[in-house]
Amino acid sequence: MNIDLNTIQSPADIKGMDITQLELLSEELRSALIKKLSAHGGHVGPNLGVVEATVALHYVFDAPKDEIVFDVSHQSYVHKMLTGRIGAFIDPARYDEVTGYTSPDESPYDLFEIGHTSTSIALATGLAKARDIKGGRQNVIAFIGDASLGGGMALEALNYAPTLGSNFILVVNDNQMSIAENHGELYAHLNELRDSDGQAPNNIFKALGYEYLYVAEGNDLRHLIKAFKEVKDKDHAVVVHINTMKGKGLPVAEANKEKFHYAGPFDAATGEPAGQFGEDYDSVFANTMLTLMRDDKDIVTLTAGTPGAIGFGKGRREAAGKQFIDVGIAEQDCVTMAAALAKGGVRPVMGVVATFLQRAYDQLSHDVAINNLPAVFVVFYPGLFGMNDVTHLGFFDIAMVSNIPNITMLSATNAEEYKAMIVMAVRQTVRPIVIRTPGGEFRHADRPVDTDFFRYEIVEEGKDVAIIAEGSMLAIAQEASKILKEKGLTPTVINPRNLSQIDKECLDRLEGYKRVITLEDGIADGGFGQKVASYLAQKGVKVNVLGLKKEFLDRYDATELLKANGMTAEQIAQSILE
Amino acid sequence: MNIDLNTIQSPADIKGMDITQLELLSEELRSALIKKLSAHGGHVGPNLGVVEATVALHYVFDAPKDEIVFDVSHQSYVHKMLTGRIGAFIDPARYDEVTGYTSPDESPYDLFEIGHTSTSIALATGLAKARDIKGGRQNVIAFIGDASLGGGMALEALNYAPTLGSNFILVVNDNQMSIAENHGELYAHLNELRDSDGQAPNNIFKALGYEYLYVAEGNDLRHLIKAFKEVKDKDHAVVVHINTMKGKGLPVAEANKEKFHYAGPFDAATGEPAGQFGEDYDSVFANTMLTLMRDDKDIVTLTAGTPGAIGFGKGRREAAGKQFIDVGIAEQDCVTMAAALAKGGVRPVMGVVATFLQRAYDQLSHDVAINNLPAVFVVFYPGLFGMNDVTHLGFFDIAMVSNIPNITMLSATNAEEYKAMIVMAVRQTVRPIVIRTPGGEFRHADRPVDTDFFRYEIVEEGKDVAIIAEGSMLAIAQEASKILKEKGLTPTVINPRNLSQIDKECLDRLEGYKRVITLEDGIADGGFGQKVASYLAQKGVKVNVLGLKKEFLDRYDATELLKANGMTAEQIAQSILE
Repeated sequence: MNIDLNTIQSPADIKGMDITQLELLSEELRSALIKKLSAHGGHVGPNLGVVEATVALHYVFDAPKDEIVFDVSHQSYVHKMLTGRIGAFIDPARYDEVTGYTSPDESPYDLFEIGHTSTSIALATGLAKARDIKGGRQNVIAFIGDASLGGGMALEALNYAPTLGSNFILVVNDNQMSIAENHGELYAHLNELRDSDGQAPNNIFKALGYEYLYVAEGNDLRHLIKAFKEVKDKDHAVVVHINTMKGKGLPVAEANKEKFHYAGPFDAATGEPAGQFGEDYDSVFANTMLTLMRDDKDIVTLTAGTPGAIGFGKGRREAAGKQFIDVGIAEQDCVTMAAALAKGGVRPVMGVVATFLQRAYDQLSHDVAINNLPAVFVVFYPGLFGMNDVTHLGFFDIAMVSNIPNITMLSATNAEEYKAMIVMAVRQTVRPIVIRTPGGEFRHADRPVDTDFFRYEIVEEGKDVAIIAEGSMLAIAQEASKILKEKGLTPTVINPRNLSQIDKECLDRLEGYKRVITLEDGIADGGFGQKVASYLAQKGVKVNVLGLKKEFLDRYDATELLKANGMTAEQIAQSILE
Repeated sequence: MNIDLNTIQSPADIKGMDITQLELLSEELRSALIKKLSAHGGHVGPNLGVVEATVALHYVFDAPKDEIVFDVSHQSYVHKMLTGRIGAFIDPARYDEVTGYTSPDESPYDLFEIGHTSTSIALATGLAKARDIKGGRQNVIAFIGDASLGGGMALEALNYAPTLGSNFILVVNDNQMSIAENHGELYAHLNELRDSDGQAPNNIFKALGYEYLYVAEGNDLRHLIKAFKEVKDKDHAVVVHINTMKGKGLPVAEANKEKFHYAGPFDAATGEPAGQFGEDYDSVFANTMLTLMRDDKDIVTLTAGTPGAIGFGKGRREAAGKQFIDVGIAEQDCVTMAAALAKGGVRPVMGVVATFLQRAYDQLSHDVAINNLPAVFVVFYPGLFGMNDVTHLGFFDIAMVSNIPNITMLSATNAEEYKAMIVMAVRQTVRPIVIRTPGGEFRHADRPVDTDFFRYEIVEEGKDVAIIAEGSMLAIAQEASKILKEKGLTPTVINPRNLSQIDKECLDRLEGYKRVITLEDGIADGGFGQKVASYLAQKGVKVNVLGLKKEFLDRYDATELLKANGMTAEQIAQSILE
């Protein structure tokens, strides 16, 4: 017997299947997934772990009438396969037709663009409340992993949802992992629930007013279907706690859950990555921190659940020992802990992905900046060369951070400058500092590092025309300068480094200039260029602020994006020549 | 027997007291508090409820060696009275010597500037970790109210703190209230714990790995001292759950806990406020919403724990019924619920205090803006005429909100324009809108409301010089215009309304102008003026961006602040005349 996956065009196509067929379907979905993931890359472990749970959800519930919200939605591949998008998973030519997350633009079965953690319970609560107001009768289901459950907004919503007093189904997909290991006592508690087959008397879900069901065999369709049928159409809040295996069915992913949370193309048999990797800034960061921490036991590195993204894989974590702190998916807790660590005389350095720093804006402002505590934050994947899913864009961080008082935001242009900034930031104890990791290709210094980081650095001294370009944009400015020199112009090229404060002394020297261009690896709105323009506009200097348009983009091409915003070297040179 | 409060200059002065003296001391502290609060205003209920708990803390623990972090720190008045600042509570001439929150500038007993909720556990976790790294042996204590405990970052930290495996004391001050009533199932659970005298088998604190003690008589010094002595120097995480009475000892405050959470000067016997109140924007908002909700059952008003601040006192909440949603102190949950409500076809309007909107930056961006859902957010106390404690400043909201794509931020200048904006925002269903409540004195319209809100409004048509002034600043611009007219100049005065997008058509008309001034009720950095300046600087138009300096200020005088930033009508007129 065989199932032609091409025939699965909507959940209706699986409703008539018997359990044997559903099991066969799950096997084929998993095989197709492994084939696509190894060739294309993607979230491996999260999706392989929920094949059966997703089949069971769509078998029992009636989406899109019944509303399913996937937390982070990085585990929604099987959901996509069952809801009209199978072609993008079985035809290699069509692999890129779907995004890696739920997307309303793709399908009415996808309710929201989602990519950050811990939002599903609040979203489902809103949907349930809207249903109640409108007198609907559909089921509302939030599907959340154990790691995301520890995030503050998940816990806020976990507390509030049962007060609705109406249908609300929370599936807790417990695979006993974050991207790396879990942190926090919630996980000891989930362990207690699993060990007691859900019978432990102390139960956080019951304490918060939920009916509670435990499914020990979370990769077994029979058990899952039975549980989902039991909770369907309930008139109150229920938790279905399912015990699943991350990476299920792919031995290398089962064996190495952290490595195969997300992976680029790999060999499915050996797990070896297909590509070659050269030097990277993550390693510069991690090695710099390891050296600093080895020499000073009062220095610590922090992360909120993304150790790998900041260069701290398992080996480096072990090397760092107690000086490495992972609080789990809890950015707010992490930023504020960093503030208090600084207060307590320790030197904290938090590594954080640009898009996730957004989750701790108030903590940066209220706890770090108002108290003016010398915590250090190093931002990864900032700018247009960072992640390009619409939910993970890294080009809003300058506007967000550089307008908070007391914080100095620095931007590095190459590995040596980056390393020197980190060392300086850790050694000083007078102010909070945020450092932007360089974006784009890995670069070594092409000039000695000028360590007066709070001032602008004049990289090329010229006249009449100046280009002030931060981070990865400096290389483009240098390229534009080369073109201009061929035409007989000698522009001044400036590396501002400090994105929080303008260097008035340096800018005053540009007063007679015919044109000043600022160039930043982020949106122009609220960025450093507008600060420069405001200062020079008083004096009537003509300034062009170049940066990205303030918009959300999904899976863009970086080169095209530069062009669309007039930010290539050729365009800049051309605009000056005109 | 009597205690001279003047002799209490540090906690050392109460260490030798016996229980009778401590009880007498508590009585006198409470009397002094009531006298000051009724004459001066402040957080009434929160402080009266913790007189005994604070005395017991300082009797048992050895601050500042032992480190106490008060959540929100609005309940730290007694702490201040016991730590060298008694004069500011018993001498009316010195009432203003202390701030309303803990402040390291005031005393080494105050560890952090704190004013937002739910931060204490993370701060204490950081202090405890720093202690462990440095080999210290002091106690670290977080003191948090039941309401603040429901905030996401408190829950994140509640989960993480016990993993330190060292001394960590969490005092949960359970007075069964938020500012208004509590919301969320956590409160049913705390109720269960109280009802069972702490013996209920299901216990969220134990589930998360804490040792747990319950003190039923949380206003009784003997019980408190016994409990604190028991947990002092423990080598692991402990929760001391104390049951206190908000407003204890002041009958009007005991009877009306919401009204006396925070109050201006009042008559201690009757509870009547001392001042007179005229029209206010809160009422305009609440009455507008009540009318809209009465006519359309699909419209809802949301708050995250601050119903009073947005005009929804008890009577109006009752009038709104199920169309009013208070999620408790859970801004993230609230903003994201609003997104999902909009998705579900309901029209959500969240009222939120400017400084607290910071707590949901990522939810505004990731859940509302990326999904482009037509949720409406009305911002209260924005700008320099808002709250002036350093932790509650309202002048960062333009920089924060106006640089997020897809969101349109509007700013109103008077009551009629404000009301019309709210109505328009609720009726449209194409985009998220954030509306700034006008700051400063209450103003009725001095001209017909121009409802083309996404475009700039020309209030006075002139030539050569333009002043573009948003919100409360428009009145200042009009005043400056009057002065200039007396000198023979006729400036153009523009009310931009839309702070997210510049009106290029309008700005193009200013190309021949000699000077353009922008004026905003917020920091200049990242604000609307810099967008205007960037646009006009390309054309070489001279622009002065007026706004507040990017800095944190504490208890400033608004008039002085305007002057310091060159933002008075006289200064503006003068700068143009020069």
